[in-house]
Amino acid sequence: MNFCSNCAAPLARRVPPGDSLPRWLCDACGTIHYENPKLVLGAIPEWNGRLLLCRRAIEPRYGYWTLPAGFMENDETAGEAAQRETLEEAGARIELLEPFSLISVPRVDQVHLFYRARLLDLDFKPGEESLDVALFEEGAVPWKDIAFRTVGLTLKHWFADRKSGAFRFHCEDLRGP
Amino acid sequence: MNFCSNCAAPLARRVPPGDSLPRWLCDACGTIHYENPKLVLGAIPEWNGRLLLCRRAIEPRYGYWTLPAGFMENDETAGEAAQRETLEEAGARIELLEPFSLISVPRVDQVHLFYRARLLDLDFKPGEESLDVALFEEGAVPWKDIAFRTVGLTLKHWFADRKSGAFRFHCEDLRGP
Repeated sequence: MNFCSNCAAPLARRVPPGDSLPRWLCDACGTIHYENPKLVLGAIPEWNGRLLLCRRAIEPRYGYWTLPAGFMENDETAGEAAQRETLEEAGARIELLEPFSLISVPRVDQVHLFYRARLLDLDFKPGEESLDVALFEEGAVPWKDIAFRTVGLTLKHWFADRKSGAFRFHCEDLRGP
Repeated sequence: MNFCSNCAAPLARRVPPGDSLPRWLCDACGTIHYENPKLVLGAIPEWNGRLLLCRRAIEPRYGYWTLPAGFMENDETAGEAAQRETLEEAGARIELLEPFSLISVPRVDQVHLFYRARLLDLDFKPGEESLDVALFEEGAVPWKDIAFRTVGLTLKHWFADRKSGAFRFHCEDLRGP
């Protein structure tokens, strides 16, 4: 961030009065440009014990498998974002159940939130951002080709909880590279 | 948003190729400026069945009561944000327990997340953004002077759950004005 999006003047990086962190400040118009973490919303669509995964057709992690997920947009709720991403990436309609995992990833300034979900039919197909979409039972999940650590963790928790007989809410942090 | 923060050129608002929503686009340097919801993180600090509330010394809602909460920052986890806000606004040290309420507020492009928490001592005092900090039992909560609907909902859920004997995770949406 180099210029003010409000008046186009050059920005300076320093701690504003009364604040404790450096921000991008515009000395011309006085705007403080805050930067905050983004929410990534996703779903864990189930069909008879199998989970729907998408093979990514875009970077990062082209060719790797993921749960349908993406950046939450303005003007929508967390649940709507999870449903929209599932429709966009997997062409799949779901009934959204409860939130299942909330994982902070401070390295990339993101918080990932996945909902349990029930696939409503088998009429899914890859969207523009996916090469392939398929259902996997636990033994068939391509564990070595999972795109993101938050997705791998969420899948492991889901299968472990199913085995234990009760799904619970998982909240954790992912640190390091 | 009128100017590119990358190159200071004027921005245009339209749907980029392959996208479905209008974005702020820079035709000079090609940057797409996405806008996404912000996370507000807070805590519900308890001491012997009473909850810690702060009376706001800033707008919006100057003079109204709230749980300690604020915008999550880059380079921190959700839990760290809840603890930081509690320290900043109430001078209070807490042990963070599990997430308790997750409330989408699409009207203002925010998602509010509150954690249950245990106050570690009674050595709290108002920070710069608070006029007062105090502990309230259910009957003493200033219900008509609560600053935000997400805080009122979270408090109601907390007292109801305590009565029922089990705290559970609450996920909901707040629509309308």
